[in-house]
Amino acid sequence: MTGLADRVRQGDGRAVARLISEVERGAPEALADLERLYRHSGNARVIGLTGPPGAGKSTLVGRLMAEYRSRGHRVAVLAVDPSSRKTGGALLGDRVRMGQSADDVDTFVRSLASHAELGGLSAVVRPAIRVLDAAGYDRILIETVGVGQNEVAVADAVDCTLLVSIPGAGDGLQTLKAGVFEIGDVHVVNKADREGADKTRREIRAMLGRLPRDADAERPAVVLTCAETGEGVAELADAVERHLALGQASGALEQRRLDQLRQETVDLVVLTVMRRVLPQGGGALTGRALADLATRGRSPAALAEELVNSLAMGHTQERREA
Amino acid sequence: MTGLADRVRQGDGRAVARLISEVERGAPEALADLERLYRHSGNARVIGLTGPPGAGKSTLVGRLMAEYRSRGHRVAVLAVDPSSRKTGGALLGDRVRMGQSADDVDTFVRSLASHAELGGLSAVVRPAIRVLDAAGYDRILIETVGVGQNEVAVADAVDCTLLVSIPGAGDGLQTLKAGVFEIGDVHVVNKADREGADKTRREIRAMLGRLPRDADAERPAVVLTCAETGEGVAELADAVERHLALGQASGALEQRRLDQLRQETVDLVVLTVMRRVLPQGGGALTGRALADLATRGRSPAALAEELVNSLAMGHTQERREA
Repeated sequence: MTGLADRVRQGDGRAVARLISEVERGAPEALADLERLYRHSGNARVIGLTGPPGAGKSTLVGRLMAEYRSRGHRVAVLAVDPSSRKTGGALLGDRVRMGQSADDVDTFVRSLASHAELGGLSAVVRPAIRVLDAAGYDRILIETVGVGQNEVAVADAVDCTLLVSIPGAGDGLQTLKAGVFEIGDVHVVNKADREGADKTRREIRAMLGRLPRDADAERPAVVLTCAETGEGVAELADAVERHLALGQASGALEQRRLDQLRQETVDLVVLTVMRRVLPQGGGALTGRALADLATRGRSPAALAEELVNSLAMGHTQERREA
Repeated sequence: MTGLADRVRQGDGRAVARLISEVERGAPEALADLERLYRHSGNARVIGLTGPPGAGKSTLVGRLMAEYRSRGHRVAVLAVDPSSRKTGGALLGDRVRMGQSADDVDTFVRSLASHAELGGLSAVVRPAIRVLDAAGYDRILIETVGVGQNEVAVADAVDCTLLVSIPGAGDGLQTLKAGVFEIGDVHVVNKADREGADKTRREIRAMLGRLPRDADAERPAVVLTCAETGEGVAELADAVERHLALGQASGALEQRRLDQLRQETVDLVVLTVMRRVLPQGGGALTGRALADLATRGRSPAALAEELVNSLAMGHTQERREA
């Protein structure tokens, strides 16, 4: 194991930050480090928070981090912003405001920009989770701005998804994209000091009642919080821990993780194949192959067969050149 | 070349029907025949008709078939029904009603059911087009029911797309899924004997005027037809032929076909890879690989690399077994 991976294993925050950056850049040694660290991952519990802008997710994440710290956990936070390269300043501000020392070696805060690349959001988040996991952070909070398919992508990478809304959001919930409401393992009504919090909780419970579910499955909890004051945050952490404990006891957590790993493998196969076959970067689908297509000298089926068969060789070539 | 492919080349309608059926079933000899016929394809002009249910597409297709026959073309019609296995009875009825003999060896009518499979609609339509093309039908009409992404999928397989609407559809056009209105190379307002046909034509022209386009590109024609009486059908065929002739002269047709072939190749690569990697049918992502994932003995990235590298070998194996 190289020095950097070793330092990550020892929980060195600077090494963690550096390795995540290098993995983001796709540096080959960093990817090798990531592979070496992989077998040391799988211990952390990963909690995703998603919801519309303005729901107070950043403040809530700050509070949850403090709550978990007070319970003796080592806590890491990833803020995923699919639209822009956020500096993480807001989050760091929250952390300081809540009396956390920036030098606390048992917390780690970082923002991740999701490049609109092949592979999508989870391709960026998963490696970062594994680095943090191998570094010994045992609670990892992922904050994401709910836009389009991002919520679902993050749900595919975590053990427990918190769906955050605010009082009066009931109608909005009903118009959520199909499949988004269903990903909530725990529901949060934040800013619960505002009027209508109880009504929104009832509406969420009614919607949950209409979802199909296994007879023995517990309904997701709906927790009221006021992140500004910290009210309800301990109850929220309790609800998350209960969901995780039940999942561990029933085997649902293990199954969920296995499903995620299998899906990730399939995604990576397609991603690898597309990278090697697509024209950009001098892929195989150029030059003579295109000319053959144009003259109908070769059919797409024949060419596709050839390309698939050349993948293994192409790979060996890459290796040798690297 | 086997007997069946030979008979297809000679324009034998029964052989054409049989080969299309066998290609649909994925019979290996049929796929080999398809490959042999491939270099004899590329001569036909392929025209797609799409639009909402009730726009009179089937009747219009019947009229266009008769018009093209009267101009000396050999005409084939494929009716694509993504939702159900249509018998083609309606179309055959239209053909008879319009005075076409069911024994006319220069026309061919068939329905295709689109199975909601990997690869989608175009994976079903393209091989059928090639069989018809190699059989010497020089105008191929593809009728599809406009549902979701099907219009766009068919546009990816044809030389000219007719977007069919009816009087009063103007508002509906504006709510078409993004990207659907844009695929129309020729616009048709059918049932033009109804009130509002001219207004709908004006609305379509206004929408066309707002689309971005190359400075030298001609705006798509908007043709009024009444398929029941046959009015406007000759003008519609003229507009289609003009679009095809302009495309041939400018090179746009050739470029469009090359883009389609390239995209088809990429689709087939992914399809092939997914078929070999996915668990169903004893794919590689089962058994020990899954157990390794579960115990974190292998990472998804390591497993994906292995799977991609095994693709070529897996293929050889398949061949030998076939």
